[in-house]
Parts: sequence; C-alpha cells; structure tokens
Amino acid sequence: MEQRISLITLGVTDLARARDFYERLGWRGQEVEETVFLQAGGSALVLWGRDKLAADCGISDDTPAGFSGVVLAHNVRSAAEVDDVMRAAAEAGAAITRPAGETFYGGYAGVFTDPDGHPWEIAYNPGFPLADDGSLTIPDFG
Amino acid sequence: MEQRISLITLGVTDLARARDFYERLGWRGQEVEETVFLQAGGSALVLWGRDKLAADCGISDDTPAGFSGVVLAHNVRSAAEVDDVMRAAAEAGAAITRPAGETFYGGYAGVFTDPDGHPWEIAYNPGFPLADDGSLTIPDFG
Repeated sequence: MEQRISLITLGVTDLARARDFYERLGWRGQEVEETVFLQAGGSALVLWGRDKLAADCGISDDTPAGFSGVVLAHNVRSAAEVDDVMRAAAEAGAAITRPAGETFYGGYAGVFTDPDGHPWEIAYNPGFPLADDGSLTIPDFG
Repeated sequence: MEQRISLITLGVTDLARARDFYERLGWRGQEVEETVFLQAGGSALVLWGRDKLAADCGISDDTPAGFSGVVLAHNVRSAAEVDDVMRAAAEAGAAITRPAGETFYGGYAGVFTDPDGHPWEIAYNPGFPLADDGSLTIPDFG
C-alpha cells in the first residue's frame, strides 16, 4: 500500500446544505450523481449522503451521531488567518467548538464543526511550515 | 479559506496497535508526544488518542462508537492491486466490511476498517486516473 490518501468522504444528511456551507468558505467543486467532489491538493474532499456512504461501506449506522473520531485540519500562515477562517465559518453556519486561542505547541488554532458535525481545526503552527502551494511536510522530529 | 486539507487525524484507543497496523501495510511515520505523523502526499495522516482528540476539539465523546461518517479512500491502478491491499489489510488485522468486487462506476473496490473502526475504501477507478506520484485529480464531469 502506497502512503497516500486519495479521497476523504464526509457523510452528510443534506447535500445542498453541506455544499453551500463549503462554498460559503470559498470551496468550489462539481456535483455528479448526488455527490460533490472538491479538489484538495492531490486528494479530494467528497460530500455524499451519510446513509449511502454507510451502506456502501457495509457498515450499519444505527448509533446516535456523536464524535466521529476523525478531525480534518486546515493549516494557515498566521494567527490572523485563523481568526479570518473561524469568523467565515461561523458566518456560514458552523458551530465553534473551541474558540481560537494559543496552543500548547506554540501556535494558534480553533475548531468548528460543519453542519453535519464534522470537526475542522484551523491552525497556525509555526513548526509545520506550508509550501507555496499549501502542501504540508511533516518536519523531521529526529 | 484555501481549498486544501493539511492533516487527517484518526482518533485511536491504542496508539501502538494503530501504528503497528499502518506499519504492517507499509506506512512509515514519526512518533512525538504520543502522536504518530505519517506523511501522505502534501497532507499527513495523524494517529492520536481518541479521548485527547475529542477533548482538544471541545467535543464530548459519550456516545457508543458507531459509523464515523468519514471514509478515507486509497485509489490504486488495477483490480489486482485492490486485492493485494485488501489481503494485506486482513492479514494486519483489519475487518473486511465489503469484500472487493465490481462497482457501479465500472471499477473494482473493497472496504476494510482499521482496528479503531475507521473505514478505508481501496479502489480501482478507471475514471479517476492517478498521476505518477499517486496524486488524484477529479476529472471534469462537465
């Protein structure tokens, strides 16, 4: 298995609402067969009906929705940019689960959940520099 | 907000078990402060304690574990490669939730869950070609 992730699919209960949320944050994608594909670097974020996603995986979805156990992070280049994205997310209808503030690793970050409860951390981490194209390379902790 | 994902963090209940699982599939990473970082293209997969991850997000984790609502996909270049990865995952302790088979989109795919129940689809999708570096570009559906 090569070390890469091709797609990250978020199960949603209202595709139009989910697409609108990400579009209000500036994301653009394509909808085909009730699925929205949003390019994200060399991977793609996908929005698809949660019921279809569970069935497609052969997994039952019969427990109450709670913490998904998966968090997506979007790293930015400054604390001010964290504040900008957190404000835009709140305006687009996100729930702020952790207001932006200083972090234990010397950065600045906040967390919101999208309309389906998927958490996003928006983080400025001076120890994880971003390339010009936004890609992130884990530093050598050696 | 730029259109990209920096980190994908999976909450795990046993970090050593989770790391061992991904290492048996050929992934390599670095552990620092009870967190495992595994480079994945221009993003990184991160393994971290589920309890810490929930607390860090300001989200309570008090519902029974069920379908996370998030699925990671690893696309490969042939049906035979799907079979290879699915076999390796089963040998590493994955649960096969959907055995590999032909898909409605003319491809071939299967789904397994890792030791913490995070689903991975292993897919050969002839409509989503991969670049030499493994990156995926969503085709123009227009």
